[in-house]
Amino acid sequence: MGIIVQKFGGTSVADAQRVRNVAERILYTQSKGHQMVIVVSAPAGKTDELLALAKGVAKKPTAREVDMLLATGEQISIALLAMAINDLGGKAISLTAAQVGIKTDNSHRKAKITEVASTRILTELAKGQVVIVAGFQGVNSQNDITTLGRGGSDTTAVALAAALKADMCEIYTDVDGVYTADPRLVPEAKKLKEISYEEMLEMASLGAKVLHLRAVELGKKYNVPIHVRSSFNENPGTIVRGGELMEQGKIVVGVAHDTKISKLTISKVKDTPGVAAKIFARLAEAGVNVDMIVQGASKEGLADISFTVNKEDAALAHDVATGMMQELSAQTVDRDDHKAKVSIIGTGMITNPGVAAKMFNALAEKGINIEMISTSDINISTVIPEPDVEKAVVTLHNVFELDK
Amino acid sequence: MGIIVQKFGGTSVADAQRVRNVAERILYTQSKGHQMVIVVSAPAGKTDELLALAKGVAKKPTAREVDMLLATGEQISIALLAMAINDLGGKAISLTAAQVGIKTDNSHRKAKITEVASTRILTELAKGQVVIVAGFQGVNSQNDITTLGRGGSDTTAVALAAALKADMCEIYTDVDGVYTADPRLVPEAKKLKEISYEEMLEMASLGAKVLHLRAVELGKKYNVPIHVRSSFNENPGTIVRGGELMEQGKIVVGVAHDTKISKLTISKVKDTPGVAAKIFARLAEAGVNVDMIVQGASKEGLADISFTVNKEDAALAHDVATGMMQELSAQTVDRDDHKAKVSIIGTGMITNPGVAAKMFNALAEKGINIEMISTSDINISTVIPEPDVEKAVVTLHNVFELDK
Repeated sequence: MGIIVQKFGGTSVADAQRVRNVAERILYTQSKGHQMVIVVSAPAGKTDELLALAKGVAKKPTAREVDMLLATGEQISIALLAMAINDLGGKAISLTAAQVGIKTDNSHRKAKITEVASTRILTELAKGQVVIVAGFQGVNSQNDITTLGRGGSDTTAVALAAALKADMCEIYTDVDGVYTADPRLVPEAKKLKEISYEEMLEMASLGAKVLHLRAVELGKKYNVPIHVRSSFNENPGTIVRGGELMEQGKIVVGVAHDTKISKLTISKVKDTPGVAAKIFARLAEAGVNVDMIVQGASKEGLADISFTVNKEDAALAHDVATGMMQELSAQTVDRDDHKAKVSIIGTGMITNPGVAAKMFNALAEKGINIEMISTSDINISTVIPEPDVEKAVVTLHNVFELDK
Repeated sequence: MGIIVQKFGGTSVADAQRVRNVAERILYTQSKGHQMVIVVSAPAGKTDELLALAKGVAKKPTAREVDMLLATGEQISIALLAMAINDLGGKAISLTAAQVGIKTDNSHRKAKITEVASTRILTELAKGQVVIVAGFQGVNSQNDITTLGRGGSDTTAVALAAALKADMCEIYTDVDGVYTADPRLVPEAKKLKEISYEEMLEMASLGAKVLHLRAVELGKKYNVPIHVRSSFNENPGTIVRGGELMEQGKIVVGVAHDTKISKLTISKVKDTPGVAAKIFARLAEAGVNVDMIVQGASKEGLADISFTVNKEDAALAHDVATGMMQELSAQTVDRDDHKAKVSIIGTGMITNPGVAAKMFNALAEKGINIEMISTSDINISTVIPEPDVEKAVVTLHNVFELDK
């Protein structure tokens, strides 16, 4: 049989008992005839502990040295997991990213993988070893240690699966899989058996925190099937993959929501060509990631421009916009942190007109005010008042019959 | 000016303040025009902490994986020290043994260095960087991480100094240097300005715990001058080096003692050829390191054989000897843990007859019973009752005028 890559997060290796549990689970899968490659994160809490050490010795720790420091977290995990497997009578070997040959660019703390060597792993697999690889890390062209930033270990797992032409990349997490909506808001939400990369990308970027965006993008690029499943039970989770999906018939596959947004409105801007471009160029320079943009109809040569940003960027965005008021002849800059984004996702929407109208009607019937709208081929997003989020998600889940 | 290699132990990097102190000390030396290469151990206590983690997941942790785990300790130290130097306005870069190219054999947990590459370090030095290297670790021919065992960081420092043709290898420790005797026993003991490799080897192996044997041997092989000095003050310590020494005139340079020995006696062994060889072969097989051996004169074809071992090997040695009693037709096996070894060391003894007689007379005059004797070109060792150690060391220190 083929190669399976499994990724376990920091909580799965947080203490000795959990390490041994993971070891048993791996050996069980191996006993079915698979070749096993395991990616592990640093033990839960370790990264924060190491960052605190760095803060203790330097006000602004050098990024290269922070990567050198942080990489020890995963190195501890892989060594312990390999020991536990060997202790249970299995055969395991741990490898750092440098030993595997996971090459990245030079961007310390947010490096991108450029190349993954497979020789060493394949050699060890051929000896019957379970190969345990440190997630989240790589080495640049100088052989300096880099780290991949957020979602790094998921990305390592998918990159390895691609390089090794693995049958499956399994991401073990604290949820069961990808649901049609957040089960905390919608108790009838159903777990999806399968979902396409495109849909998963929208689900991930729209606030469903199951699997990191980068990992999905990489999976799509190399056509690696990704199985998102629970580390607490043996239930099948959700498989993210390309090609024909069994559930493709559905127009809408899920409802996503995000309450971590702020809406800013610059009012009564003089409506001359290029004014919007100027605003968003300035925001981009300041490092603010703008999501949705709506420019209202011009009245007497003046228009309101609204946009949304991550809540954590709201203060900075407000400063930038306020600083431009005179230049824009704007009247006010308002910031509202009590908004939410609710979206429906599905590749079937492209070929099914009327989906947007159905969505807007359903929200209107419940008295929910839609303040902004944006659409793509596979998602329709709305900004609504934050207190209406639960009602909106439940309503859309019902209307599109996602519990069926 | 040339390259200086400095080695700091685990207590020097045990907390943030100490890391910053070391960083300042390094920058001060660099400011005098030296190129600086620093070797650091894991923070004090870290290795034990990591070994406890290993014990938690496996009854018998795989040696290869223990090395993978332990190597994170030094990696933490080098990253923190580099950050601290950068934060103080200096320029520093940390390198693991793999990045430097410190090659070892395959013996996990007690690897021997086979080769040290200098390219990466020289490149970084040329950029004005302080280069911080992880002590105690290396990589084998497969690029697997190994650790060097006891005295590993001292050995790394001397090996780097040899490869880089450094002007000096400075070992920072919690003592001021090498003394003519243990200052806790002999308040008049004097710090030696210089000592030869050979004498230092005897001092180190005979119980003066200042500098590890392996590091001295390596220093001797590559003629690296080693400066043993205190990490708590700026005083010059002791320089271990080859060639003509200023103090060479002295016949005896120091008195060493070791109370961690046990004496075993197998009595009334049938005195046939090869009987001693048989005993010591069996002990070696069991992993017991035998130090001194004395075979008494044969009476009526029966002889007593005495030998000393490390106290921690005494029980095992006793078991092995007892197991051979029938085979040897021996009468008893006695074990005595209350012995001590007292030695005088000096390269001048070769050309000065009468040194041994002077030593034995001095001890006899104080009523100290000499139970065993062994001699080499540069040392004379005696085994005496443990309660007499202090008296013996003080007496010999006086007789050979080491306080002068």
